[in-house]
Amino acid sequence: MSNSKVINLKRRPSGTPTLADFEFTTAEVPTVGNGELLLRTTYVSVDPYLRGRMNDVPSYIPPFELGEPIASGVVAEVLESKHDKFTKGDYVTGSLAWKETQVAKPDGLIKIDPKQAPLSAYLGVLGMTGLTAYFGLTEIGKPKAGETLVVSGAAGAVGSVVGQIGKILGLRVVGIAGTDEKVEMLKSDFGFDAGINYNTTDDMTKAIADACPDGVDIYFDNVGGPISDAVLFNINKFSRTINCGAISVYNNTELPKSISVQPFLVRNSSLMQGFIVFDYADKYPAGIKQLAEWLQQGKLSNTETIREGFDNIPQAFLDLFDGKNTGKMVVKI
Amino acid sequence: MSNSKVINLKRRPSGTPTLADFEFTTAEVPTVGNGELLLRTTYVSVDPYLRGRMNDVPSYIPPFELGEPIASGVVAEVLESKHDKFTKGDYVTGSLAWKETQVAKPDGLIKIDPKQAPLSAYLGVLGMTGLTAYFGLTEIGKPKAGETLVVSGAAGAVGSVVGQIGKILGLRVVGIAGTDEKVEMLKSDFGFDAGINYNTTDDMTKAIADACPDGVDIYFDNVGGPISDAVLFNINKFSRTINCGAISVYNNTELPKSISVQPFLVRNSSLMQGFIVFDYADKYPAGIKQLAEWLQQGKLSNTETIREGFDNIPQAFLDLFDGKNTGKMVVKI
Repeated sequence: MSNSKVINLKRRPSGTPTLADFEFTTAEVPTVGNGELLLRTTYVSVDPYLRGRMNDVPSYIPPFELGEPIASGVVAEVLESKHDKFTKGDYVTGSLAWKETQVAKPDGLIKIDPKQAPLSAYLGVLGMTGLTAYFGLTEIGKPKAGETLVVSGAAGAVGSVVGQIGKILGLRVVGIAGTDEKVEMLKSDFGFDAGINYNTTDDMTKAIADACPDGVDIYFDNVGGPISDAVLFNINKFSRTINCGAISVYNNTELPKSISVQPFLVRNSSLMQGFIVFDYADKYPAGIKQLAEWLQQGKLSNTETIREGFDNIPQAFLDLFDGKNTGKMVVKI
Repeated sequence: MSNSKVINLKRRPSGTPTLADFEFTTAEVPTVGNGELLLRTTYVSVDPYLRGRMNDVPSYIPPFELGEPIASGVVAEVLESKHDKFTKGDYVTGSLAWKETQVAKPDGLIKIDPKQAPLSAYLGVLGMTGLTAYFGLTEIGKPKAGETLVVSGAAGAVGSVVGQIGKILGLRVVGIAGTDEKVEMLKSDFGFDAGINYNTTDDMTKAIADACPDGVDIYFDNVGGPISDAVLFNINKFSRTINCGAISVYNNTELPKSISVQPFLVRNSSLMQGFIVFDYADKYPAGIKQLAEWLQQGKLSNTETIREGFDNIPQAFLDLFDGKNTGKMVVKI
């Protein structure tokens, strides 16, 4: 019997979360029962969608309970197995609690191969992040070579993969990000055709028009808010907007208002569709296969911001809202 | 050589159009050339989308020219034909100028049968109105029997047909309209399951929730604005919103703002899609066939508000924005 560090949700954040919303504590690790695994956390994924689960609002996944551990995508090492499909030394990934050590049933956990790719990639380009980019762009965006794709939050975890897949599929790809360094990196590291720094651009509508001389056919929207309003003025007939997230408004305490999208959609016979990656769960194996192939061919890079230390998980999460990550933010334990 | 009354666009309306935006004049009717028809206007369709063409803004159809006749859906009698597919006494429908008499090439005109249905029905349930309802609901809404459909502008031309088709396809149908009389008529004449008068309802979000105990699977949106905001709070996972029009904001002189739809779409994996009926032009024959069949079976009614007199066309158009029509507004000449 041993103890493990645990991070609980202490209170529901009002607006932007702070460290005071989290509780650092310890809990006893139970003994491993039949069919269970003892797991040591290796990498923890922090993601903007977790903010939604901190509210007491029904959504696609239930809210976190107050005083209970937060959970997210985790890579863990099997320390002890009482399940016949897993052995000591295996690595697994799936949704697990923010605990240094825990006992869990392997339902929903996938065994992963540290030789095929670095372990952290399974939280990034080969994990929910990569699959979100892949299914959103291909299933909703329905890209055709030669079309123009705009990506907001382009230097973020999902956005940077979306842009790379866009290039693989023959699109003109324009990324929107918040610093000159990120914009430069979109072009130098990820092969974007153009980038826009929304923090130094007065007229986003015009900047998007300039970067997209043939208009916008596909918009992969990670942010919502004023940036997405500006894209609306540039959408083409039959364009598709993929609503992946709305990080710009997640911390609003009042219901956010934007330009009415309806007249733009009517005028352009245009589509907007929200999704979460779980909608495509039955296609995960095909998605991972395609992404792993591109990764091994060097067409896709796994860009990460890695923080270290269990105690730094909450701060890494908070930093997402200040755009301090480039690519996928993970915490190495 | 004779003269014909004509209605031109005199100036581009600012906000809500007024009679002063129209010019009543006369023009010479040219002689009929080879391949042309001399046509006498019998019925004129007035439609909210014409408001958009009065602005000098590029859209799916070009704007009207100042000092030139307005055009809309028209039923006309052939007075003289120099085209081998048409003879004197035929009736045709298509987009024609607001002129009592005109000479036109028959490109885009369809010959119609006054024995199959009343002539005005070809501007309504068998015309663009019916096809708009049919293709929007079936192609974008993808209805499944047992689902719940909400229709805004439900007593209007398109909305009343949408609701009826919804009932034919086995949906629970809830309509939103602006008077108690209209709400009553939705239920008594069109078979809607429930109706909401938005002018006498304080809490639209709650009223929609009450009328849709299983949530909203399909929203056929003719209005945009606050009514559509209220629907958002009630949409189901994988719901579809059909953006057919946004009459509530067409006359706004400032860019209208609404609740940001993006977080709702993400949270519910929900779709919104705009369209115009021309997107489905290759399927018109199949659509008209289906609608005519339902009309003849008595499953679908052609509800009209008929005004009389060429000079009353502009007023009939203006009255659309005050909701003075029930079903399709047409002017009999």
